[in-house]
Amino acid sequence: MKKLFLAFAVLAVMAMIVLASSLLVGGFIREPTDANNEKGGVPRDRTQPMSAKRNVAIFIHEGVELLDFSGPGEVFASAGRSQAFNVYTVAASVDEITSQGFVKIKPQYTLANCPPPDVIILPGGRTDVPLSNSKVIEWIKKSSERTEIMMSVCTGAFLLAESGLLDGKEATTHWSAIESLKQQAPKTTVRENRRFVDNGKVVTAAGVSAGIDAALHVVDRLLGREAAQKTARYMEYKWEPED
Amino acid sequence: MKKLFLAFAVLAVMAMIVLASSLLVGGFIREPTDANNEKGGVPRDRTQPMSAKRNVAIFIHEGVELLDFSGPGEVFASAGRSQAFNVYTVAASVDEITSQGFVKIKPQYTLANCPPPDVIILPGGRTDVPLSNSKVIEWIKKSSERTEIMMSVCTGAFLLAESGLLDGKEATTHWSAIESLKQQAPKTTVRENRRFVDNGKVVTAAGVSAGIDAALHVVDRLLGREAAQKTARYMEYKWEPED
Repeated sequence: MKKLFLAFAVLAVMAMIVLASSLLVGGFIREPTDANNEKGGVPRDRTQPMSAKRNVAIFIHEGVELLDFSGPGEVFASAGRSQAFNVYTVAASVDEITSQGFVKIKPQYTLANCPPPDVIILPGGRTDVPLSNSKVIEWIKKSSERTEIMMSVCTGAFLLAESGLLDGKEATTHWSAIESLKQQAPKTTVRENRRFVDNGKVVTAAGVSAGIDAALHVVDRLLGREAAQKTARYMEYKWEPED
Repeated sequence: MKKLFLAFAVLAVMAMIVLASSLLVGGFIREPTDANNEKGGVPRDRTQPMSAKRNVAIFIHEGVELLDFSGPGEVFASAGRSQAFNVYTVAASVDEITSQGFVKIKPQYTLANCPPPDVIILPGGRTDVPLSNSKVIEWIKKSSERTEIMMSVCTGAFLLAESGLLDGKEATTHWSAIESLKQQAPKTTVRENRRFVDNGKVVTAAGVSAGIDAALHVVDRLLGREAAQKTARYMEYKWEPED
């Protein structure tokens, strides 16, 4: 077994040398700290040039839909050779949450101590849980004053609606929640059959996997088409930019 | 705020009534226990008819690629109106693991106490970690004697190779690891430019998002085309079956 592993190690090193000059964009075997080197809750120096890493806060809650947050999470964490964004999870409390009935996640930060986000991702799922927590809605409202992007996935759009951030804007959500969003957000033009809707700061994705498309679109806007295409290529995602 | 929430609750109930007769297949606002009602580590009665839930073990490890496991996780957990599979995470130890540098996950089971899997998912990422653990390889070998499906995603294929399960078979992996797999698994026909390769029991997916396609393909095989299409529709995933 040891011999076999040694042989594999040698081959792995050889492969890495070959790959170093290839199109590898994300480093699929990466150090777990690569995508997150600004731990400790200390807000970064906001006077840094714009080339510094943007903070991407992924808000999670009990019953959060797994792919709603992990799709965009994969996109932002692997973009720019895993160096473009500082991605972290944020929740209303320190308590462990369960996603999709089986993924037990310990949030990295709470609303009170998370680094100031440049991008906030609001996934869906059991959206009734955060909707009933006024602290979450207050955090969304207040944070949005300084973020570049507020992005919802699936029924996460209801959090933006409750926060007033969809008033006078266009939005979408999971196909099964379109009618409900129309009623809940009467000042919003709700669009069907769209992967995502971009209002500038506020971006809403349709259901579940559409969060990947919206996240790639945001990477496209923030880092350029080439970076977004490389991220999609790394993820082997059949990305079809809408413009 | 309370008034608004009450109004939303009423609208939500109305919407649910409308949706009950619609095409909703997965229940995007679901109880977190829906997909996992066989907790406690007690092996299910194997004399149950085949219509009983199949156990899907998602093996996770330090540095596991986020979408590699969460893509198939979403597919299996939401298939059959979230009732077809009992999906759970399994790791080499009880220790918390970090995926993609920022998702802190507490495994539900270890190799020693997990319910007997019918389907095993082996995601990639820092595959060097499980490859260097002989207990993991032994578990894969032993478990494969009674599973219906052994499915790898991305560099998870190297775990199948190390376990001897790719010998004499066709396989694929992340595009950046194709050459490495050819060298590591000389008895395997390694295929490029394929979303997945199906050998019957052993299914290997290409990188990251291709795990979604392979998982939908497995659902197609186990539950039929209609169930797979409904799952893809629920996830709003542009699924293109290969046959």
